Amino acid sequence: MTIRYTRLGPAGGEIPALAADTPEGTRYYDLRSLTDDIDGAFLASGGLERAAKAFQSGTLPELAGAAELRVGAPVARPHAVVCVGMNYAAHAAESGATPPEVPVIFLKLPNAITGPHDEIVLPRYASRADWEVELGVVIGQRVYQAQTADEARGAIAGFVLANDLSERTAQLDVSGGQWSKGKSFPGFLPLGPWLVPAADVPHTDLRLRSTVNGEPRQDSRTSDMVFSVEEILIDLTRYMVLEPGDVILTGTPEGVALSGKFPYLSDGDVVELEIEGLGRQRQQVTVQP
Amino acid sequence: MTIRYTRLGPAGGEIPALAADTPEGTRYYDLRSLTDDIDGAFLASGGLERAAKAFQSGTLPELAGAAELRVGAPVARPHAVVCVGMNYAAHAAESGATPPEVPVIFLKLPNAITGPHDEIVLPRYASRADWEVELGVVIGQRVYQAQTADEARGAIAGFVLANDLSERTAQLDVSGGQWSKGKSFPGFLPLGPWLVPAADVPHTDLRLRSTVNGEPRQDSRTSDMVFSVEEILIDLTRYMVLEPGDVILTGTPEGVALSGKFPYLSDGDVVELEIEGLGRQRQQVTVQP
Repeated sequence: MTIRYTRLGPAGGEIPALAADTPEGTRYYDLRSLTDDIDGAFLASGGLERAAKAFQSGTLPELAGAAELRVGAPVARPHAVVCVGMNYAAHAAESGATPPEVPVIFLKLPNAITGPHDEIVLPRYASRADWEVELGVVIGQRVYQAQTADEARGAIAGFVLANDLSERTAQLDVSGGQWSKGKSFPGFLPLGPWLVPAADVPHTDLRLRSTVNGEPRQDSRTSDMVFSVEEILIDLTRYMVLEPGDVILTGTPEGVALSGKFPYLSDGDVVELEIEGLGRQRQQVTVQP
Repeated sequence: MTIRYTRLGPAGGEIPALAADTPEGTRYYDLRSLTDDIDGAFLASGGLERAAKAFQSGTLPELAGAAELRVGAPVARPHAVVCVGMNYAAHAAESGATPPEVPVIFLKLPNAITGPHDEIVLPRYASRADWEVELGVVIGQRVYQAQTADEARGAIAGFVLANDLSERTAQLDVSGGQWSKGKSFPGFLPLGPWLVPAADVPHTDLRLRSTVNGEPRQDSRTSDMVFSVEEILIDLTRYMVLEPGDVILTGTPEGVALSGKFPYLSDGDVVELEIEGLGRQRQQVTVQP
């Protein structure tokens, strides 16, 4: 049976929960007897394994009314969100670039994280807002200067679906080419619905898709990545320490508005994203009055 | 009398303290009766004012042996470190660029923060490490879409001296031009020694200097900034929410190794930095074995 982790409830007041599929549908269990939150300290101390054992021994209480609760991001605010750019060759091409020879990284502010189905609220001046479906890696152990793919894999707690929302004018035109200005508007990182333990995710070959108003936009597989998850972690940790709970976004495939093939997001649009085994997101766009 | 805030003790175990100059020298007072740490929550709740009142009423205990303690960064790990690039015209020129028309921003990882006198530990492959003395702004109130200079100023808790250490190969050559990879090595942000309340800092015209092995490198004034502190905050908060405790680095003046006029940092070098009224830093460079 697949066990997944999620956080349910109002923004800032989410309850840590375990989700399990049963013949009667998905059931939710309350993790508050084990932890205050799904955060770096919980992950680093083997919290996912403790929670799974408690579930299997039948000691976790069910979370009443779980299906009616808002879904939050499945990890509490991390220390860092590190993103890889141009990590799918066809997306690099549609953005007017060649595939990079080393991972291109940039950072997003952690307070851009929001739940997978929360509204996307755009300021009026954010007129070139774009979707980016991405495989997110959640770090489980502090890691610096990882030397091997095994060591890199050992630092991963699990995987998560992410929308690396981007406003292209702020990203490309008004910060001297440094991208972070267009990546960190509040709510610009819908995350979830689930954190799935690494052992249960065949992360090297997952289908990832996005649609806008039901029309297809992105549809690729993680096997098309230029740099694998393990190569990304080895490269990143040459330059920085990753901490438990940190989120690494591994790049987006082709099919975004920046390509010129599709319009940017506007008021009332509905964005949907999915990664095989990691769930679905649905966001409605609204423009700040 | 000038009151300053600092954190003293081993890394990860710093004690929040208040420093006051007296005719007998600087005296240190223990703030642990008021707060666990100097962090965003403390700043947002008017902690600096509470601490100053407690000091003036004589109720704070002196911190015994303070002069022998390591000096930590004066704010506990923030949610974000946002940096402005090319904010002094002469530094833009020495870097081969023209002064920007809007603030160029990039992010550093918060876990790069360290104390003002801690060793700089360079990996062997970090062969182009460079100093950057900068005026740091510490945010005291959550702020998004600030409209006026007054609103921007109202969000500032205080100012701090910072060394925005940079490894130029990682910054410029191996991340497709995105700078963050060369900015976030562990220890690449010495901060402090003091957080000085905003009202006590004439931040628009402060002398800032750096030396390497006693030889002059940077020597400018904050009045030479392309964008003022207030203009930076108004611009940044169009694109992101700043949180209490966040640190904004406002750019570095000319006189860094990137100019080609000085060698990059190497084993045994001593870097010293100073901003008028914000104290001094001294770091010895060591290369990772």
